[in-house]
Amino acid sequence: MTGPSDVPLKVALLGCGTVGSAVLRLLSEQAADLTARIGRPVEVAGVAVRRPDRHPDVPAELLTTDAHALVRRPDVDRVVEVLGGIEPARSLLLAAMAAGKSVVSANKALLADDGVALHTAAADAGVDLYYEAAVAGAIPLLRPLRESLAGDQLRRVVGIVNGTTNYILSSMVETGAGFGEALAEATEAGYAEADPTADVDGFDAAAKAAILASLAFHSAVHASDVYREGISAVSATDVARAAEIGCTVKLLAICERVPGANGAGDSIAVRVHPAMIPTSHPLAAVNGAFNAVFVEAEAAGQLMFYGQGAGGGPTASAVLGDLVAVARNRVAGVAGPNATGYAALPTRPMAETPTRYHVSLDVADKPGVLATVAQEFAAQGVSIATVRQDGHGDAATLVIVTHQAPDAALAATVERLRGMAAVRGVTSVLRVEGLT
Amino acid sequence: MTGPSDVPLKVALLGCGTVGSAVLRLLSEQAADLTARIGRPVEVAGVAVRRPDRHPDVPAELLTTDAHALVRRPDVDRVVEVLGGIEPARSLLLAAMAAGKSVVSANKALLADDGVALHTAAADAGVDLYYEAAVAGAIPLLRPLRESLAGDQLRRVVGIVNGTTNYILSSMVETGAGFGEALAEATEAGYAEADPTADVDGFDAAAKAAILASLAFHSAVHASDVYREGISAVSATDVARAAEIGCTVKLLAICERVPGANGAGDSIAVRVHPAMIPTSHPLAAVNGAFNAVFVEAEAAGQLMFYGQGAGGGPTASAVLGDLVAVARNRVAGVAGPNATGYAALPTRPMAETPTRYHVSLDVADKPGVLATVAQEFAAQGVSIATVRQDGHGDAATLVIVTHQAPDAALAATVERLRGMAAVRGVTSVLRVEGLT
Repeated sequence: MTGPSDVPLKVALLGCGTVGSAVLRLLSEQAADLTARIGRPVEVAGVAVRRPDRHPDVPAELLTTDAHALVRRPDVDRVVEVLGGIEPARSLLLAAMAAGKSVVSANKALLADDGVALHTAAADAGVDLYYEAAVAGAIPLLRPLRESLAGDQLRRVVGIVNGTTNYILSSMVETGAGFGEALAEATEAGYAEADPTADVDGFDAAAKAAILASLAFHSAVHASDVYREGISAVSATDVARAAEIGCTVKLLAICERVPGANGAGDSIAVRVHPAMIPTSHPLAAVNGAFNAVFVEAEAAGQLMFYGQGAGGGPTASAVLGDLVAVARNRVAGVAGPNATGYAALPTRPMAETPTRYHVSLDVADKPGVLATVAQEFAAQGVSIATVRQDGHGDAATLVIVTHQAPDAALAATVERLRGMAAVRGVTSVLRVEGLT
Repeated sequence: MTGPSDVPLKVALLGCGTVGSAVLRLLSEQAADLTARIGRPVEVAGVAVRRPDRHPDVPAELLTTDAHALVRRPDVDRVVEVLGGIEPARSLLLAAMAAGKSVVSANKALLADDGVALHTAAADAGVDLYYEAAVAGAIPLLRPLRESLAGDQLRRVVGIVNGTTNYILSSMVETGAGFGEALAEATEAGYAEADPTADVDGFDAAAKAAILASLAFHSAVHASDVYREGISAVSATDVARAAEIGCTVKLLAICERVPGANGAGDSIAVRVHPAMIPTSHPLAAVNGAFNAVFVEAEAAGQLMFYGQGAGGGPTASAVLGDLVAVARNRVAGVAGPNATGYAALPTRPMAETPTRYHVSLDVADKPGVLATVAQEFAAQGVSIATVRQDGHGDAATLVIVTHQAPDAALAATVERLRGMAAVRGVTSVLRVEGLT
């Protein structure tokens, strides 16, 4: 190892919102430690922002509105991007890497949308592209997937990766409120944005799922490959039904390797949707704005990573960890391991992905109804795991949990049930995960 | 990045017990994936064992009893050590590194005992020394501490890092059994060794605590710097008392940074002892043979890592992850970041470490006893957080939880209580952690 040198490594910071400000604060507060850990001091060369007058805390001589010029400056040798969104972030990162500058990004949308092009640019230029902060904030997750588990075979990665929806679902479980009421409360409390679409409709979680699946299975997965359902259709009835079968409701990002049948190769299924999970599952206890990711690997078995998924400090911690890594690599004169896409596993359509359903029905309480209902499941090739029938007057409630079947067969069964004369109403349909 | 080459990287495996066999199995099963991930194939050059006739599954031409000769062989360029114990592991690793060979070790005792010498040897030779498998088996923990959190300031690392004692304590909580009975059951079930000293007396956890503290605080911490109490004195009464105050009992490895008072510098306190923790704490739900480590950092906030802490497969997964890392470094022609000891924080004696106690007393139920008891706490400068008094006949039980005080002051208070006329018996004393 070479000893510390006094020549500072110069970093350009693109964006200075909540995360960017926290990055600047940590760089200044921990300057001595970072120098010791890297072997050279780190210095901020410039901060690109849209409105310099809005950043009175940043020394004026560092501020610029010309991000492209900042990235091209010859004295800048690392770029940290916390702008978010696709453009101009994409062009800026590509320009930085083409100029031989390693980049650290917190931009999940960009990585999920254009990860392959960015990784190719990094490999071509022999530079680092790190983005730990893009998924699950401060939780060290991407580095463990890329490195710690590089000698193992992953089976599944299941995560609660969106704090807003987890906050809303946690409060529905606690208070029995419906989705609308819980969303209003979350907005009031500052946990949901004025336009909550990206969170509640699952777009944010789907971007993170694409990134996780790409790293976990060494295959390029694009955000548009991810099946996505949000939580706006989750009802107080769904939550109550979940409790009755010992479950709770979570929005899950699920990435799994599906073994091929009859000699076909394996594929990967990547999906985001609300699901019932047993309260005994480690993910069930992850409440409020916390994130957690559960990993199952061939040799390692079950692992879980838990922590704060958002916020300035936690996200900045992940950015700084990456910055130390790329700076150490710079001092050593190398690039770290790039993400690999060698396995190139195809993604499996949701219709063919094996899932399990919970279905609650209101039916007429007369002999033969259960048999008729069961016949509809059998007709679609769906096997039933458990049924509970509760009579009340001339009506009864049927609560059915299926075994695994292709998602399309389950969805088709539910459609058929809705049309049956004996079925007065389908009161709750949710997928079930984590039952043994 | 250079493309794949056909020249294999040759690995020497030292030891072939449960972990070594699992390493060999994974190397063979995942050969194609490992080649793709590293960029070159990995080949086992030889396996050093004591009794070759006991390894019928290993090709005879790979087996040798001369580990020193194997390590020195010019065609061997990586060494994986899963022997355990101090010697000959220490001499073999030093010889390997002196010869320019990176090493992967699962040897917690050796790293805790002689980490400084080993890290110095690695730095001098410019090679890698990785040992993820030494702490908490398959859980990616050391790499996150060394790398992901390298831009943050750690406050505390609190872990359940010994599966045997966690199994015993979990079963005491579940069944109400005493320590002896629970140990016998664990031995029967294969969770405790015939000589359980290393586990139940906390030596294993203390070695892991030393490794964690060294990495977390960039300071050399030796196994002998760790304060250590095992679980053999934990009684069914302690477990029952814990439940009464909403807690459970765990053996914790605690590494924390203690701010210096009055301008003195910070120090680190590293200790292993049983403690009551609130059942709402994420660590409280970690049962049976599972491990988990809870981390608090300045910017990242609270994180938890959870998984299987032992066993052939999980430990081999961690070894293989390290092997991929050192092999990638070999392909790139560099060494990864070494552990740093630049902060060189002093370790704080247990007597001066701030802790909190739970104390249960049987006292005479007459006026003034509580005042007399409270006076003993005050005399030692210990402030009381909560007291509960339950009368029954002429006797009463006092359950006291203190605020933080130097451990020596708390221990002295308990000694004084034991000698008081009004105190008929001190029925339970345990430290309390994680209460807010």
